[in-house]
Amino acid sequence: MCKNSKIETLLESVKNGALSVAEALEQIKTLPFEDIDFAKIDHHRPLRQGYAEVIYGESKTPEQIISISQKLLEQESNVLITRTNSTVYQVLVKHFCDAKYNELGRTITICRKEISKPKSYIAIVAAGTSDLYVVEEAYETASILGNDVRKIVDVGVAGIHRLFAYLDVIQKAKVVIVIAGMEGALASVIGGLVDKPVIAVPTSVGYGASFGGISALLSMLNSCASGVSVVNIDNGFGAAYNASIINHLSS
Amino acid sequence: MCKNSKIETLLESVKNGALSVAEALEQIKTLPFEDIDFAKIDHHRPLRQGYAEVIYGESKTPEQIISISQKLLEQESNVLITRTNSTVYQVLVKHFCDAKYNELGRTITICRKEISKPKSYIAIVAAGTSDLYVVEEAYETASILGNDVRKIVDVGVAGIHRLFAYLDVIQKAKVVIVIAGMEGALASVIGGLVDKPVIAVPTSVGYGASFGGISALLSMLNSCASGVSVVNIDNGFGAAYNASIINHLSS
Amino acid sequence: MCKNSKIETLLESVKNGALSVAEALEQIKTLPFEDIDFAKIDHHRPLRQGYAEVIYGESKTPEQIISISQKLLEQESNVLITRTNSTVYQVLVKHFCDAKYNELGRTITICRKEISKPKSYIAIVAAGTSDLYVVEEAYETASILGNDVRKIVDVGVAGIHRLFAYLDVIQKAKVVIVIAGMEGALASVIGGLVDKPVIAVPTSVGYGASFGGISALLSMLNSCASGVSVVNIDNGFGAAYNASIINHLSS
Amino acid sequence: MCKNSKIETLLESVKNGALSVAEALEQIKTLPFEDIDFAKIDHHRPLRQGYAEVIYGESKTPEQIISISQKLLEQESNVLITRTNSTVYQVLVKHFCDAKYNELGRTITICRKEISKPKSYIAIVAAGTSDLYVVEEAYETASILGNDVRKIVDVGVAGIHRLFAYLDVIQKAKVVIVIAGMEGALASVIGGLVDKPVIAVPTSVGYGASFGGISALLSMLNSCASGVSVVNIDNGFGAAYNASIINHLSS
Amino acid sequence: MCKNSKIETLLESVKNGALSVAEALEQIKTLPFEDIDFAKIDHHRPLRQGYAEVIYGESKTPEQIISISQKLLEQESNVLITRTNSTVYQVLVKHFCDAKYNELGRTITICRKEISKPKSYIAIVAAGTSDLYVVEEAYETASILGNDVRKIVDVGVAGIHRLFAYLDVIQKAKVVIVIAGMEGALASVIGGLVDKPVIAVPTSVGYGASFGGISALLSMLNSCASGVSVVNIDNGFGAAYNASIINHLSS
Amino acid sequence: MCKNSKIETLLESVKNGALSVAEALEQIKTLPFEDIDFAKIDHHRPLRQGYAEVIYGESKTPEQIISISQKLLEQESNVLITRTNSTVYQVLVKHFCDAKYNELGRTITICRKEISKPKSYIAIVAAGTSDLYVVEEAYETASILGNDVRKIVDVGVAGIHRLFAYLDVIQKAKVVIVIAGMEGALASVIGGLVDKPVIAVPTSVGYGASFGGISALLSMLNSCASGVSVVNIDNGFGAAYNASIINHLSS
Amino acid sequence: MCKNSKIETLLESVKNGALSVAEALEQIKTLPFEDIDFAKIDHHRPLRQGYAEVIYGESKTPEQIISISQKLLEQESNVLITRTNSTVYQVLVKHFCDAKYNELGRTITICRKEISKPKSYIAIVAAGTSDLYVVEEAYETASILGNDVRKIVDVGVAGIHRLFAYLDVIQKAKVVIVIAGMEGALASVIGGLVDKPVIAVPTSVGYGASFGGISALLSMLNSCASGVSVVNIDNGFGAAYNASIINHLSS
Amino acid sequence: MCKNSKIETLLESVKNGALSVAEALEQIKTLPFEDIDFAKIDHHRPLRQGYAEVIYGESKTPEQIISISQKLLEQESNVLITRTNSTVYQVLVKHFCDAKYNELGRTITICRKEISKPKSYIAIVAAGTSDLYVVEEAYETASILGNDVRKIVDVGVAGIHRLFAYLDVIQKAKVVIVIAGMEGALASVIGGLVDKPVIAVPTSVGYGASFGGISALLSMLNSCASGVSVVNIDNGFGAAYNASIINHLSS
Repeated sequence: MCKNSKIETLLESVKNGALSVAEALEQIKTLPFEDIDFAKIDHHRPLRQGYAEVIYGESKTPEQIISISQKLLEQESNVLITRTNSTVYQVLVKHFCDAKYNELGRTITICRKEISKPKSYIAIVAAGTSDLYVVEEAYETASILGNDVRKIVDVGVAGIHRLFAYLDVIQKAKVVIVIAGMEGALASVIGGLVDKPVIAVPTSVGYGASFGGISALLSMLNSCASGVSVVNIDNGFGAAYNASIINHLSS
Repeated sequence: MCKNSKIETLLESVKNGALSVAEALEQIKTLPFEDIDFAKIDHHRPLRQGYAEVIYGESKTPEQIISISQKLLEQESNVLITRTNSTVYQVLVKHFCDAKYNELGRTITICRKEISKPKSYIAIVAAGTSDLYVVEEAYETASILGNDVRKIVDVGVAGIHRLFAYLDVIQKAKVVIVIAGMEGALASVIGGLVDKPVIAVPTSVGYGASFGGISALLSMLNSCASGVSVVNIDNGFGAAYNASIINHLSS
Repeated sequence: MCKNSKIETLLESVKNGALSVAEALEQIKTLPFEDIDFAKIDHHRPLRQGYAEVIYGESKTPEQIISISQKLLEQESNVLITRTNSTVYQVLVKHFCDAKYNELGRTITICRKEISKPKSYIAIVAAGTSDLYVVEEAYETASILGNDVRKIVDVGVAGIHRLFAYLDVIQKAKVVIVIAGMEGALASVIGGLVDKPVIAVPTSVGYGASFGGISALLSMLNSCASGVSVVNIDNGFGAAYNASIINHLSS
Repeated sequence: MCKNSKIETLLESVKNGALSVAEALEQIKTLPFEDIDFAKIDHHRPLRQGYAEVIYGESKTPEQIISISQKLLEQESNVLITRTNSTVYQVLVKHFCDAKYNELGRTITICRKEISKPKSYIAIVAAGTSDLYVVEEAYETASILGNDVRKIVDVGVAGIHRLFAYLDVIQKAKVVIVIAGMEGALASVIGGLVDKPVIAVPTSVGYGASFGGISALLSMLNSCASGVSVVNIDNGFGAAYNASIINHLSS
Repeated sequence: MCKNSKIETLLESVKNGALSVAEALEQIKTLPFEDIDFAKIDHHRPLRQGYAEVIYGESKTPEQIISISQKLLEQESNVLITRTNSTVYQVLVKHFCDAKYNELGRTITICRKEISKPKSYIAIVAAGTSDLYVVEEAYETASILGNDVRKIVDVGVAGIHRLFAYLDVIQKAKVVIVIAGMEGALASVIGGLVDKPVIAVPTSVGYGASFGGISALLSMLNSCASGVSVVNIDNGFGAAYNASIINHLSS
Repeated sequence: MCKNSKIETLLESVKNGALSVAEALEQIKTLPFEDIDFAKIDHHRPLRQGYAEVIYGESKTPEQIISISQKLLEQESNVLITRTNSTVYQVLVKHFCDAKYNELGRTITICRKEISKPKSYIAIVAAGTSDLYVVEEAYETASILGNDVRKIVDVGVAGIHRLFAYLDVIQKAKVVIVIAGMEGALASVIGGLVDKPVIAVPTSVGYGASFGGISALLSMLNSCASGVSVVNIDNGFGAAYNASIINHLSS
Repeated sequence: MCKNSKIETLLESVKNGALSVAEALEQIKTLPFEDIDFAKIDHHRPLRQGYAEVIYGESKTPEQIISISQKLLEQESNVLITRTNSTVYQVLVKHFCDAKYNELGRTITICRKEISKPKSYIAIVAAGTSDLYVVEEAYETASILGNDVRKIVDVGVAGIHRLFAYLDVIQKAKVVIVIAGMEGALASVIGGLVDKPVIAVPTSVGYGASFGGISALLSMLNSCASGVSVVNIDNGFGAAYNASIINHLSS
Repeated sequence: MCKNSKIETLLESVKNGALSVAEALEQIKTLPFEDIDFAKIDHHRPLRQGYAEVIYGESKTPEQIISISQKLLEQESNVLITRTNSTVYQVLVKHFCDAKYNELGRTITICRKEISKPKSYIAIVAAGTSDLYVVEEAYETASILGNDVRKIVDVGVAGIHRLFAYLDVIQKAKVVIVIAGMEGALASVIGGLVDKPVIAVPTSVGYGASFGGISALLSMLNSCASGVSVVNIDNGFGAAYNASIINHLSS
């Protein structure tokens, strides 16, 4: 009621003749924007209704994170904190005893509300064990957004037979996340083997001319396989968020 | 019948005792790979069964293109030729009178087989009229792969009210392609307004420090909106191919 | 009248009881955005009321440019066409005999409406004669937007005494545009000599490691003088547009 | 009196015949430059007469900073120290008990002289809370240079409705500073919504391919909105200095 | 026996009539890939049969390294650990008393099995003493892979007479590794003096515009001498691995 | 005889007492360098004894090329001209009727002397048909330097089953050249499948962020497979020259 | 007399009492800068007194060049035009029959005044014949500025014995210009062999990752030899100008 | 005597008939290179005869530095250690009580031998106080190599009048070193004001888009003044070494 009060009052005034149509028209034009459209624009966020809200942990104090988490939990939202660390977790767990920490993925999750999952699943495929920090960030994100996830790790192209052993589980996923550093060739190889959307995440793993992930990023953008799109370096969260949207699409 | 003949013969020999199991096992291991797995691996391509085959036209002669097209049409495949030009079309249309040329998109299509389309549609949103060459490549690709497409052009962020006028048609799409050059800000703005997968295509439009699309590419990769993934500069085909996979996903 | 018709009709319906307030409220929310707010947002553009409208000429046909110009002139707007060429002008001048072509600046102007100018002026300072194409684009832009302009050219830092001869006219401007290629040092030197806003334009003049203007761009961004801001390489139009806004500011 | 003494003495000598014109001419040419022109060139600095002097704190010892501050305060100048830290402040405040520290902005200010402010104000708009360190540097700079400032934070384009709620206060400013990291799209959006000069500051916020602010920088330089100019990455001081010059311009 | 069990069982079923040829054909197509081809593809690795296995030490715990080493030693493989440090070595040597640490090269080796070496040798030539960390990594790698190695250090091109004193030993090698930072000119000079394959390793030695090895990398890629190929910056391991393959080639 | 005449004369003079040892010593030090060492240093070039001499055709006139070729043929050397074109060939073939032109590879060869070849062969593997110009340059180079060559084209990783069909011929080569543009992933995949030296050639094929071959170059340098070294972009000649040295190595 | 007339008149007025000292002081401050200091600052240019004046030919019309040349010749200056072409020369030679064109170096010279040369000479050393266009620009520049020049070409490091044959003439020069493309190693090698200033010029010769001269530029900047400084890519003029200054220095 | 013994013995053998001329010829060709030419090539180094030897201190232990210093001092050479620190100095001064440490310049010098200096001097000009670390490295280098040096600091172009006050001392130097970070404009300004060789040193001072000195480097390479050459970022040693060579040149 409160949000639309200004325009409602205005319409009432038109109805009862207190305002002419021309006057009302003029007033509508000068109404602050959000009074009209705030609700409509905002309800586009898929995370809202019972899913989860994400807190980007970097450069936030434990106190700030607790305060935001508290507010979200009151709104019956699950909570995902990314780019955090064990120090934050030690403080947080005293307030929310059901908070869980993924050390490798650097995430904290507080999951209190049942999430309905689609039957289809997301496959997360990674080239090497050193890409695991991104795998775990993607895993936690996809999980709390309500998805089944299958992880296949250490199937880099330098020993391509390892990949083929898992081809079936990859091909049956609804959407595939491919995570790779160094030369990032895995995205192209998988892109050529599946007929599902492939979201590639370059990682900053490597040395020398890997340039903190740029080599892998360029490699993935130039993939000769057609079904590959790319997110930012190390952005496991973004890939999983994207994959979750696709996994929840109804036909 | 022909493709599997070698392994079939081999199995027949096992059946009739001409080969021992051990001998057969040995021979199977040394069989050329494709004799065994060609069909399996290959049927992952969504374009095959009645969809369309794509010919990358750059640096191919009209003769080569005609020859490949002929072969594809015999296999009852529709044909999409990208990165082509009117010279090629003039030659091609003499052989295939139903070939159609999209000058802006630099594509030729030969569509002979009915394509079943999902009910959902793909929205293609572009910042400026100078991005139209990518819009049209994406449009032709998505269309021949069997998708309904809505084009919304010239809604760049410098006049953001123009975008809002089309918000509804964008928000109701199953997947959104955003095409923008210069600073590529449109991807972030739309990414924040819809809850569908957004595939961003940077274009090489711009001058000065736009570096042939790199500025837009970086902008899109760093999007503060979470549901955005990116394809290569000017790669309208890749974005549409990707969007088509998503649009055809069943839940 | 036409623009607001939908919402007017709606208000009339509320007035005469055909719609309840709640129904009207719902419909307002779903009205296309521009029907409500187009005018408000749009009237922020300084070019509108009697100033000039800008047509970016690159990749537009003479016919398109004529058509847009025609429309603008009917709205009593002056016309500025940037990044154009003499071929376009030859066609255009047959339709608009008062069109004027600046070959160096690659601009066409059609000025039919008196423009009121502030008393203050804009100084355009350029390092070399090879920067003149940007000087002229800036000059034509600033002029048609209603500004007095003083041009000082060929005062690069390699012969700094030449600059000092014009210090007075530069220091008395309300805003200064500095245009330089190669190492772009002129922006820093002038930034240290005036107490007015300095807008720096790097040009693509130079060879070797000038990288099409990047050296000058970086130089200007790193200026040790505090009052310098920068626009894109060769963007004389942008600098002049910016300077014009500042020159028209009332205190 | 003191500054011009050498040339005055010289002129006196000509007057009273102690020097011939030719001798005087020769001596004038060899006079140290600043004896002639120092005052003229130097009085261009707006900070001088009662405003404030800026000390760039990086790599200066507390002792050096105290010594310079002392000297400036004796000249009745207010003092702004940028890029400093709390250690410096702890030492400084013992000498100047009215020194104030802005931790986020990393600035110290000592304000002893009344500053006359224009009626118009500067709007500082930032995309996210992580851009606050630049916001605060800009805020302190603009304030001590004698300006009213309005801060609007966390209005990034991924949730564009938040921005519209503050459109009015932004549009009424005399000059707008836009601060954003990641993809820097906010500058273009605001550039399209206001008719005032927009000074964009890219921040080094972001990760992956944000390259410490380069993505945002390129994005802002390529802005499709015309009234945007750019300063260096994280250079809140430079933007505010620039904005202050504009805000103090009389018409 | 175990690996091929599925297909063996299948063949047995064909043999005894339990499966028709057509049914068997269908099942073969869907067999997991590795059941058929794992062994074949995998035995391509030269390190396997009695040579050595490499553990990339970066970001692995001492415990992980011990565990992998244990497993490899049980398979009668020698062990090379690269990018490790003395802390890891202190732990490791307690388990494997014959482990040897090369501090400069940051490698640990455990060599228990006799390695047959070719008569020919590998020459490792380095420009300066500051390139020694890469020299040693290459040396340890080449040695444990079964090669005689000659090291020639500090023969950079700024004092080219030093190089000529060792020309003979360089020219008689079967393959030459050239390691250089800064401008990397040594690769070109040696490439012009020998008729053997030259593998160049750029090092991250240098400062200023050496960009952590990129200058040397580009220099080596652009070598005017024809017999030079390049590996990644600081990749002494890769160069030695490569050289070892060549040194072991029979004619 | 002629080359050493100066030093021989000198030695004769010592012998017959016309020069003292001390005088001779002094003269030896001042002799032009090449008189002493020219022959020794120069005989390192494998192309000399009956192989072939290479002429880099770019920016040489047909006349210059004919003149150099004439000289080389007189020395009983075969001739390879790279980076040439059909115009040069038209002129050349009038002088040397046995000259052969490879249009795709842009090479001309004149082969008059029998070349003894090793039994082993070089495999040239390329990702796509658009890499053929580099394949052909490598092919012609390797052939005239006396090598058997097997070409395997269009086996890019997006359809990896195609590659496996040729695995045997690749694995049996003595050295493998891998040519790929776009993301260059083929080098890593093959590097993981063979135990022979792999020389990777990035090509400038691709568009958008392929940056004229840089993406492929970085990808190859960062290959996770150990036996891969890299030559410059499009440098088919360099790769083949390198491979030829390796193929001619005796054990 | 004429140059100083304003200030002379002023001093006369002071002398004869027509102006007070205070009035004179005021007027001196407002005198145009050049009236005082022009001569002093300007006479620093070595090209002035009888040497030569340089016209940068790029983007100037033949008419402009003729007009400037005419003016310079009237001042008894020799003329050097760089970055010009044969079209300009055809026009120019009709006006100045003694104009000479260097096609490779793209320079025109008009030499009418005897130039006194130092006894010492400049050595110009170049790696390959494809660097000749820069060699010739440097040669013409050095010559018309009054220097003896020795050219040594095609002594690149891939055949280093060729360089040693000319070591003597290089070591006896007063200053050495080294011109090289590709990997630019020649500068380091020569820098280590001579005890004279070495000015390195990277050329844009090369392909692939030579990036139009950047590889050579970086290589030269990172030279391990200490006496090397660098000018811009292809800047033969700048190197020769620099070398000429050094060659004309008296001790 | 010792150096030439091999060839002397050989010549003696020719003289007394123990070797034929042919045999001697053969042996000369295979003599190690340095036995013949070491002395000749090596005596090109200006530092040798009584000047100073330089030790690059980075990554050397105090013990190594002491050992090298000891050896040099025995050869009556002065010693300069660059890129060192106070820890090294504390150890060093115990062995060489006359060692001197320049903290800002990070250099240690041991000067025991009188150095003859030219009458001319080197001017070192720096833009800001934050460039002092490079100034001091250059100062110590130039001093120990036997040069008078004048330092002029804090004369950056943002307050160009400060520079003019010192113009005379700059113009009278024989060679000028210009040191500047940020936009590096000072090199161009000074290059336009003096007729002496200018050696520019970009410094890594600055933030944002200064990229650790690259902006200044590019700026200096693109200088519009002709007499400027450039050394690597922060390379004060190289600039001073270069300047010293020039300052010691006799005419």
